[in-house]
Amino acid sequence: MKDFFKVATIEQVMSLRNRFPVLKRTTVPLSEACGRILSESIAAPENLPGFRRATMDGYAVRAASTFGASESNPAYLTIAGTSRMGESPDFSIGNGEAARISTGAMLPDGADCVVMVEHTEAMDATTLEIYKSAAPGQYVIEPAEDFAKGDIILSEGKRLRAQEIGLLAAFGRENVPVFGRPVIAVISTGDELVPMMEPPGPGKIRDINTHTLAALIQECGAEPVSYGIVPDNRKSLARILEAAVEASDMVLLSGGSSVGVRDIAIDALSNLPETDILIHGISISPGKPAILATSRQKAIWGLPGHVTSTMIVFLKVVKPFIHHISGAADMLFQTSVRSARLSRNVASAQGRVDYIRVKLRETEDGLVADPILGKSGLINTMVKADGLVEIGLNVEGLNQGAAVEVELLT
Amino acid sequence: MKDFFKVATIEQVMSLRNRFPVLKRTTVPLSEACGRILSESIAAPENLPGFRRATMDGYAVRAASTFGASESNPAYLTIAGTSRMGESPDFSIGNGEAARISTGAMLPDGADCVVMVEHTEAMDATTLEIYKSAAPGQYVIEPAEDFAKGDIILSEGKRLRAQEIGLLAAFGRENVPVFGRPVIAVISTGDELVPMMEPPGPGKIRDINTHTLAALIQECGAEPVSYGIVPDNRKSLARILEAAVEASDMVLLSGGSSVGVRDIAIDALSNLPETDILIHGISISPGKPAILATSRQKAIWGLPGHVTSTMIVFLKVVKPFIHHISGAADMLFQTSVRSARLSRNVASAQGRVDYIRVKLRETEDGLVADPILGKSGLINTMVKADGLVEIGLNVEGLNQGAAVEVELLT
Repeated sequence: MKDFFKVATIEQVMSLRNRFPVLKRTTVPLSEACGRILSESIAAPENLPGFRRATMDGYAVRAASTFGASESNPAYLTIAGTSRMGESPDFSIGNGEAARISTGAMLPDGADCVVMVEHTEAMDATTLEIYKSAAPGQYVIEPAEDFAKGDIILSEGKRLRAQEIGLLAAFGRENVPVFGRPVIAVISTGDELVPMMEPPGPGKIRDINTHTLAALIQECGAEPVSYGIVPDNRKSLARILEAAVEASDMVLLSGGSSVGVRDIAIDALSNLPETDILIHGISISPGKPAILATSRQKAIWGLPGHVTSTMIVFLKVVKPFIHHISGAADMLFQTSVRSARLSRNVASAQGRVDYIRVKLRETEDGLVADPILGKSGLINTMVKADGLVEIGLNVEGLNQGAAVEVELLT
Repeated sequence: MKDFFKVATIEQVMSLRNRFPVLKRTTVPLSEACGRILSESIAAPENLPGFRRATMDGYAVRAASTFGASESNPAYLTIAGTSRMGESPDFSIGNGEAARISTGAMLPDGADCVVMVEHTEAMDATTLEIYKSAAPGQYVIEPAEDFAKGDIILSEGKRLRAQEIGLLAAFGRENVPVFGRPVIAVISTGDELVPMMEPPGPGKIRDINTHTLAALIQECGAEPVSYGIVPDNRKSLARILEAAVEASDMVLLSGGSSVGVRDIAIDALSNLPETDILIHGISISPGKPAILATSRQKAIWGLPGHVTSTMIVFLKVVKPFIHHISGAADMLFQTSVRSARLSRNVASAQGRVDYIRVKLRETEDGLVADPILGKSGLINTMVKADGLVEIGLNVEGLNQGAAVEVELLT
């Protein structure tokens, strides 16, 4: 309880993100750019599509040639030629003239709209009846309608989705400027741990956190590097920590929930080069004993030993720091949320943010969130969970039937 | 209009999924298993954690030794030893006895609970005062509390998230049985298309769909294989289609929105081995002209030429087929949804499901969805969009202020 006064709110921890520099810029081929963060704003080098395109099969005409046309009083036009796909027509259209055109083809000069084939009838090879009046611009994409030359098409910090990949392809960007992918070191501590490949002897368990954290890091678009299990002593821990800080962009040290081991970790962190212990305890449950230190301008996290606590601290606290050093400008609408109603009362303590694991269930009255009971030392609570429900710092609990936003654990 | 009667609902298309077999089973190392689909149910080979573990730092005792203890009337116990981390204690605890224990360590025989160090005071090396009564099981995880030997820990068809990776590590599964990753062929058609690397001449545009679809396929956890741009003629198309069907698990053919090109595509599809045109038109907008054919028990999709239409058919129709052949049992809570209110009226035609692109905006009254106007031939509508709002088959439109579920385009 001695360091209770140091416990920071999640907001206080978040405000420290700017201490850590964004990674270096690099370039990747377009085929590898999906999910990456753009490292410079990009202007359109030309108009898109660059020419006047039809969006329907039919006839390119001047709209004025069709004014007043109807089923009972069709307009009669002369077919002047065919606008072929992927070619620039070698003729132009005047009043009273039409050109056959397919979706995607270029309108001939003089034409300002397309009449759907369904509203026409070709009387012979050169005579066309039109049954409906057309407006200028109808079924046409103008040369700069998608993007105009010089427009900023994408801004620095944008996370590239499939449509952004398509847009970059539209402008012929074979190589894309992006920020580097963070390399994140994962270290487990604990004399009770054995590597996953070994059968655990009495009193021992396999190292779960290394593998869970590696998967979470991959899901963030970053690259995990495992340093294995370090014995609970100052010297081994200090040596590995220093190597990990040197070789990576962030370090996650998990384990050491017991007071003695936590003291060893704090001591090892305190002796790193250019170091500072920034946070020692976060008002979050599960996950309160989390530590944030810095060395060589890199973040080093001390995460709880229980896998559920570690996962929640990762998702709610560490992940925004990974996004920050990745250069991501705005991850606002990147998390998956579902609205649901709680199926039972849930208690919470004031002065901390609680994350309740819930299972979702579809009912006639909409989605229902069933709280999952069980200690945070049990991985089964996370395996059963579809998502997390947050109970705020100053809320004592939530009642059965309360409307909640469930953040999905996808 | 001639084939209007054939237009299928999305549900009718979905009901065809079972025609397509799930991919073969394979095995991957645990480090590559995140996001993959489990291909067999897995039973716990042993209890987890396998021994009685402390979840707090303090003293392991028999609860009965503490009954009635309080600040004013402490219980006095004899410290019999220390339960060391990662070891099996070589002593047991009787009535009136206690063992020092750290979080994660094994309780000695005879102890049934842990008393937090904060509720105790060690008077000397062997005498302990306890100020609070403890219940059996307090701050303890029982040997089979997380999972019992023989329990099904994960079922076939489960998509593996970080916590499932952790669980498999807990049981020492170095290799994980999963279904194969679908290999999806991507073919573009259109005489107006040039490869991304080439400057488009007059009337031409770069091939956007190949790159957009490849990115969408990667986001699904599948592997795209590009066959490039095929000229709009029956013979070339038939040859490439047959090669693609042979070499991949599904084929996406995009382009050919114009009637002439669509006829060529239908003709080429009709002449494949063991072929059938299952769907010709879907009641979805944008995206109505989509085609589903089959050859050699594989799905072949004819997708619209406009990139927005192609993306929406992919997300709403093709993706569930990819999940099906991937062996995924339940992708129910995998999509990202946000509740919002529409900022303006949106019209829709009855008899089709409309997907409106929206941009999200946070306001004091919650999230607002601004519909994005613009033709489906424009990629900028998808680049601006945070998500899609569905307007159902028999709904004429949505009013300003309507509560909508926005499916995020992440």
